[in-house]
Amino acid sequence: MTMKPFKELMPREEAIDIILENIRPIIITEKLHLQNTVGRVLANDIVAEFDVPPFDRASMDGYAVKAADTYEASEDNHVRLKLIGSQQTGEMFEGEIAEGECIEIGTGSPMPLGSDAVVMIEYTELDGNYVIVKKKASPGRNMAPAGEDIVKGTRVLKSGCTVTPGVLGTLAALGLIEVEVYMKPKVAIYSSGPEIIPQGVNLKPGQIYDVNSFTLAAVIELNGGEPYKRGIMKDNENSIKKNLKDASIFDLAVFSGGSSVGAKDLFGEIVNDMGKVYFHGVKTKPGKPTLFGKIENTCVFGMPGYPTSCLNNSYIYLIPALRKMARLEPKYWVSIEVPMGEGFESKSDREQFITVQIQDGKAYKVYKESGDITSMTYADGFIILPIGKSKVKEGERVRVTLLNV
Amino acid sequence: MTMKPFKELMPREEAIDIILENIRPIIITEKLHLQNTVGRVLANDIVAEFDVPPFDRASMDGYAVKAADTYEASEDNHVRLKLIGSQQTGEMFEGEIAEGECIEIGTGSPMPLGSDAVVMIEYTELDGNYVIVKKKASPGRNMAPAGEDIVKGTRVLKSGCTVTPGVLGTLAALGLIEVEVYMKPKVAIYSSGPEIIPQGVNLKPGQIYDVNSFTLAAVIELNGGEPYKRGIMKDNENSIKKNLKDASIFDLAVFSGGSSVGAKDLFGEIVNDMGKVYFHGVKTKPGKPTLFGKIENTCVFGMPGYPTSCLNNSYIYLIPALRKMARLEPKYWVSIEVPMGEGFESKSDREQFITVQIQDGKAYKVYKESGDITSMTYADGFIILPIGKSKVKEGERVRVTLLNV
Repeated sequence: MTMKPFKELMPREEAIDIILENIRPIIITEKLHLQNTVGRVLANDIVAEFDVPPFDRASMDGYAVKAADTYEASEDNHVRLKLIGSQQTGEMFEGEIAEGECIEIGTGSPMPLGSDAVVMIEYTELDGNYVIVKKKASPGRNMAPAGEDIVKGTRVLKSGCTVTPGVLGTLAALGLIEVEVYMKPKVAIYSSGPEIIPQGVNLKPGQIYDVNSFTLAAVIELNGGEPYKRGIMKDNENSIKKNLKDASIFDLAVFSGGSSVGAKDLFGEIVNDMGKVYFHGVKTKPGKPTLFGKIENTCVFGMPGYPTSCLNNSYIYLIPALRKMARLEPKYWVSIEVPMGEGFESKSDREQFITVQIQDGKAYKVYKESGDITSMTYADGFIILPIGKSKVKEGERVRVTLLNV
Repeated sequence: MTMKPFKELMPREEAIDIILENIRPIIITEKLHLQNTVGRVLANDIVAEFDVPPFDRASMDGYAVKAADTYEASEDNHVRLKLIGSQQTGEMFEGEIAEGECIEIGTGSPMPLGSDAVVMIEYTELDGNYVIVKKKASPGRNMAPAGEDIVKGTRVLKSGCTVTPGVLGTLAALGLIEVEVYMKPKVAIYSSGPEIIPQGVNLKPGQIYDVNSFTLAAVIELNGGEPYKRGIMKDNENSIKKNLKDASIFDLAVFSGGSSVGAKDLFGEIVNDMGKVYFHGVKTKPGKPTLFGKIENTCVFGMPGYPTSCLNNSYIYLIPALRKMARLEPKYWVSIEVPMGEGFESKSDREQFITVQIQDGKAYKVYKESGDITSMTYADGFIILPIGKSKVKEGERVRVTLLNV
C-alpha cells in the first residue's frame, strides 16, 4: 500500500483495511493465575490430563443399586434391597455392593463398587434397614460415567480462545493453577498542544485540560490494551522526534492534538521522515486530520486534538487495531433502528458520525461541534450519514449504533 | 413476601422480583483517581466550576479578523488586511487587533482581543505582510464562544451516572483529579461439598476441583462487584453456621454446592433458622435447588453445586442482584433470531435454558447435562424453552441470547 498525499482523504473502509493490514497480533505471552485470565486470550491449546468427571457418579439423589436387582420392580411389585451404608461425597465407599444390596447416594457422589445404576429417591421408601424400590432402573440409569464431560487427552480449548466465565470453568475443572495467555499490547499515549495542561494545575488564559489521554486510555483498557500515558508533547520538531522515538518501544502508539498552526503537517512530515505514513486525513466527520503510520515496527495513530473527534475516531479506527493486536474478536456493535425524534440538517463532503440520545424510543441529535466533549458524554450511540445525505427528517427511521453496551 | 415451602418451585420472573425487592443499592462511596473511574458510578452531581471552553476560540485554521473589515470581500473583490502576528496556542496574544489588521490563528486557539471572526485559510492568500481575504465573515463566524460546550455552574453529570469513556472526557475537561464513586459491592463466595478440593492438590478418588468459585468470581467482577473467595465449606451444621455468620459482614454472599445427601435441605434450614429464606427451588432448568435468603442484612444466594447449573443461574438470578447493588443499568442482553441447525427434544416441567453454539448462522444445542461445565464453555448463547415446550424442530427459528458480547 503506497502513501496517499495528505490532502486526499481516505474513505473509512479503506482506512480500516490499511490499519488491519499493518497491525500484527501480539506474540509475547505471560503466565497468569487462573482467576486473572478472564477476558484474556489463551496462548496454548489446553489438553485434558484426566477425565472430567474423574469417576462414575450419581446424577440424582437416591440409591446406588445393581440394575439387575430392580428389573422386577414396579408400582405394583416392590423390590426390597438391603441398605448397607451411605456413600459419602468426596471419598470412595469402602465396601462393594453385593446382590440384593444398595447404598444411599447423593447427586455428584462416586458410584460405589458393584453398583451400576441409581434409583431416584422419589421411587423408593425406607423401611428400617431396607429400601423398597418401586421402579426398575436399567444399567447406567441416573449416573454419569467418568469422562462424560471431558475425556482425558481431548484438546478441550484452542490457543486463541478468549477466556469467558464458561471457559474459566473448564480450566478450573482441569485443576489448572496458572494459564499462559497473550500479553496485553502496551499502548503509549501522547497528548500534544501547548494549550493542554494536566489536571491539578490552574488554567491560565488560553489553556485547557488534557482530555484525550483519559478517553484514549479508557478505550484502550476496554479493548484489551494496556495504556501508558507518556505525557504532553510540545509541537516542535525536536519534541515530536523524541516522542516518536519513545513510541517505537511500545506495541502501538496514539498521539492526539497538534492543534497550533502548521503542527498537524509537521507531525505527519516527521512520521513520514522517520518511518511511513499510510494515510493522513480520513473522509469521515468529525476527525478529518487522522493519521496512521509506522515508526520502526510500531504502528502510530495521530488523532485529532478535539476531544469528540479524538474519541469518535478511537471508536472507528483505534478499536479495530487494538482488538486485532490483542487477538480479541472484532467489537460486537449493537445497533437498533428507531425513528428520529426531530429532523436536522448537516452538510459535509465526508461521511458523518452524528451522536444521538435515545428518549422514549426516539433518537435525538446531541452532536454539536467536534470541539465539544459533551457530544460524546451524553451520547447513547451514533448514526452514520453517508456522503451525499445531509438531511434527516423527523420520524425517519435511523440505525443507531449503541456506544455503551 | 412470605417464605414458600421448599418443594414449591418459584417461577423465574417471580424469583427475580423477590431478589430485586430485597437487594439494596450500595451507599458507601470512595474517592478514586479520575482514570480509575471507568465503569464506576458517580456518587455526586458534577457541577462545572468554569466555562468549557474557558475562552472564545477559533474553530477553523485561518485568520482572526474584525468581521466588519471583511464585509466587502468576495471572489471578485479582495480585501487586504495587515498580518500583525500569529496567535500561539496555549497563551493569549499580547496585542489587540485594530481596524484593517488580522492575526494568523489555528483551530482551538483563543481569539485575540479585538477579533470577532475567523476567515478560513482556504479563502485567503498570503502576500508578504498582508493577507488577501476573498470571502466575507459575519461576527462569530468560525469561532466558538467560551462556554459553548459547558456553561459554568451547569450540573453536567448526575449522581448515579456510569462513567463511560465519554463521561470521563467531561470529568477530565473540568480539571477533576479525584471523583467520588460508589464502592463496589463486596461479594463473598463459598464453595461447599467434601468432594471439592482446591487446584494444586492431587485428586483422590471421588474428588473434583473447585469450579464454581472461579466462574462466580468472574461473573461478579464483570457485573460491578468485588469477589472475596472465602474457601470451601463443610456440609455440616457447625460449618454452615460459621460460614453464614462470616457471610453477614459482606454486602452479598453466594454459596454453591452442598451436594451430599441431605446437605441441600440442611443449608436451607439453617438459613431459615438464622435469617430468612425467600425461596428455595426455582422453576428453571438447570439449577432447580437455588436458594435466596437473608442473614442479618446480607442477602444470600445458595447456588447448585453443578458447574453449569451454578453458572447458568448466576446469569439469570445473580447478575440482576449484582447490578442493582452496584447501581449499574440492568445487563443489556443481546439476542438474535436464527434457525435451529438440528432438532432436539428435552422434556421438563420447568422452563429450560438450553445452551447453543452458532455455526454458519444456525444454532446447535451444546447443553448436555447440568453436571457438564463444557455446556457453558462452548456456548455462544442460550435459548429458553417455556414450560410445555419440549421439542425444537430442525429449521425452527429460535431466539438466542448471546452470552459473550
